[in-house]
Amino acid sequence: MRIFVTGGSGFIGSHLVDALVSLGHDTVVYDNFSTGRLEFLTSTRNQIELVEADILDFECLKHSMKGCEMVIHLAANADVRGGLLDPYKDVKQNTLGTHNVLEAMRANGISRIAFSSTSSVYGEATQIPTQETESFPIQTSLYGASKLAGEALIQAYCEGYGFRGWIFRFVSIVGPRYSHGHIYDFVKKLDETPGSLEILGNGLQRKSYLHVADCVAGMLCAIKHADQKVNIFNIAHSESCTVLQSAGWISEELGLDPTIHVGVSERGWLGDNPTIVLDASKLESLGWRRSFSLEQGIRSTVLWLRENRWVYRRGQ
Amino acid sequence: MRIFVTGGSGFIGSHLVDALVSLGHDTVVYDNFSTGRLEFLTSTRNQIELVEADILDFECLKHSMKGCEMVIHLAANADVRGGLLDPYKDVKQNTLGTHNVLEAMRANGISRIAFSSTSSVYGEATQIPTQETESFPIQTSLYGASKLAGEALIQAYCEGYGFRGWIFRFVSIVGPRYSHGHIYDFVKKLDETPGSLEILGNGLQRKSYLHVADCVAGMLCAIKHADQKVNIFNIAHSESCTVLQSAGWISEELGLDPTIHVGVSERGWLGDNPTIVLDASKLESLGWRRSFSLEQGIRSTVLWLRENRWVYRRGQ
Repeated sequence: MRIFVTGGSGFIGSHLVDALVSLGHDTVVYDNFSTGRLEFLTSTRNQIELVEADILDFECLKHSMKGCEMVIHLAANADVRGGLLDPYKDVKQNTLGTHNVLEAMRANGISRIAFSSTSSVYGEATQIPTQETESFPIQTSLYGASKLAGEALIQAYCEGYGFRGWIFRFVSIVGPRYSHGHIYDFVKKLDETPGSLEILGNGLQRKSYLHVADCVAGMLCAIKHADQKVNIFNIAHSESCTVLQSAGWISEELGLDPTIHVGVSERGWLGDNPTIVLDASKLESLGWRRSFSLEQGIRSTVLWLRENRWVYRRGQ
Repeated sequence: MRIFVTGGSGFIGSHLVDALVSLGHDTVVYDNFSTGRLEFLTSTRNQIELVEADILDFECLKHSMKGCEMVIHLAANADVRGGLLDPYKDVKQNTLGTHNVLEAMRANGISRIAFSSTSSVYGEATQIPTQETESFPIQTSLYGASKLAGEALIQAYCEGYGFRGWIFRFVSIVGPRYSHGHIYDFVKKLDETPGSLEILGNGLQRKSYLHVADCVAGMLCAIKHADQKVNIFNIAHSESCTVLQSAGWISEELGLDPTIHVGVSERGWLGDNPTIVLDASKLESLGWRRSFSLEQGIRSTVLWLRENRWVYRRGQ
């Protein structure tokens, strides 16, 4: 199948592209390289079609999509914390960007779309672990709001234009090529000041981290086996840890024993959700099982960052 | 208080403006008159400040809002059925429009916003009557998707910028100045062919209709008495009727006995939700009670349309 992957040179996107290529799919990667890296496509570069462009460039998007049978739309602004500095960024890149993708699909007669949404859309969930049928959410971040808007648009296209949608709500994804998030930040901080580590918030925020290989396997499993009009899946597992615990593993992997400095807030930043643990039983009911524990995921991320210091060279 | 009302010359907006003026509020009406009518402001025209402009004109919006303490944001594309003809219209007018309103507020240091959302955001609800805490919705229309995105943006601004929000999910609102919707359409059709009436769908769609006076009283009650960061209320009552029943009352009020022609689908159009009945107990817990029954609401609407045929002169 000819598959169009927006954000295909990013952390998760490039792993997905590896998998699609190895499954024999004809793959088009569409990426503006704002956070994606050409290095992540090293092993697939000669087997894919690569378009360096922005999803906000509608004409290019429409033209590049020609002949594809499915779109996996991962391109997004993923900087949750920075949303308040420029509140139009999430709206533009995530909501309008998704609308552009849907319109380009409609113009090309493509009706199958998979979409990377986020655990952030649950806001401060009432049930932990949180199921896909959690009660009507209240958003706490512009990122979550923009992704919820993306989900909603896809659903309306499914109903109105006969599209079929797979919506994935990711917990934090970790593993090789991880180049954004708290592990990335902690390793950077510890490089600069090995004796101390400052944590945003009180460090007791409880989050879940899934290995990118399990994430990609989960997406492909759902796309293969779920065939409702709209298919919504948490991409997660039931394990969680506190930020403090993860700081311990990260320090250990780096051979360091820093003094940890924590704040007093239960939130790392304005809009942060102190507890994010999702229920993965819907995905598991399709036969998917994770291969990496949470701790393995975090430790393997540090290992990769240690050996790939070059990812820090272009600051994020 | 100086209050800024977008869409203040519309059906619901103009009734709200009547109420604000009679309560002594300094009121600015901001409307592009795409569906609003100057005639609806006849009784308040000399007591309000009127700006004829579009919420998509950000500079004008920002400038006009100066000195206001609260924004009631009602301006929107309310044509649910037409969404599929131009899928960018809802995104632009409802999602980006709401973002513009929020940004203009932020630029002016205004933090209180009330917003007209819709029962459509519940999609095909699992619980009837539907509570505000209904499970995570799946959108069926571009209108619902764009309003959900508006809700989400407001919530993110409440969390991130210290805003306070009142989000109102309306059932169908009826009464004097009603100039859009199925009663409007039925009266028009019966004017043209008094002997027959064609209904979209099988006529068994079950919906709820609330009188605009009760709607406005409900909004003002919630704004006055609810003071959470984000306050979400169904503006509704528990009564409902089928489209066929309403067709009977409408025909009766017009002194007609038409042959009714129905379709076979349980939906009036693609994306229509066959059953919309909302639970109003949250609003009632604040002391609000409706004054008009559903039947009174519908009959009074026909009466007003009969005596105000001029609203048909500018086609919608």
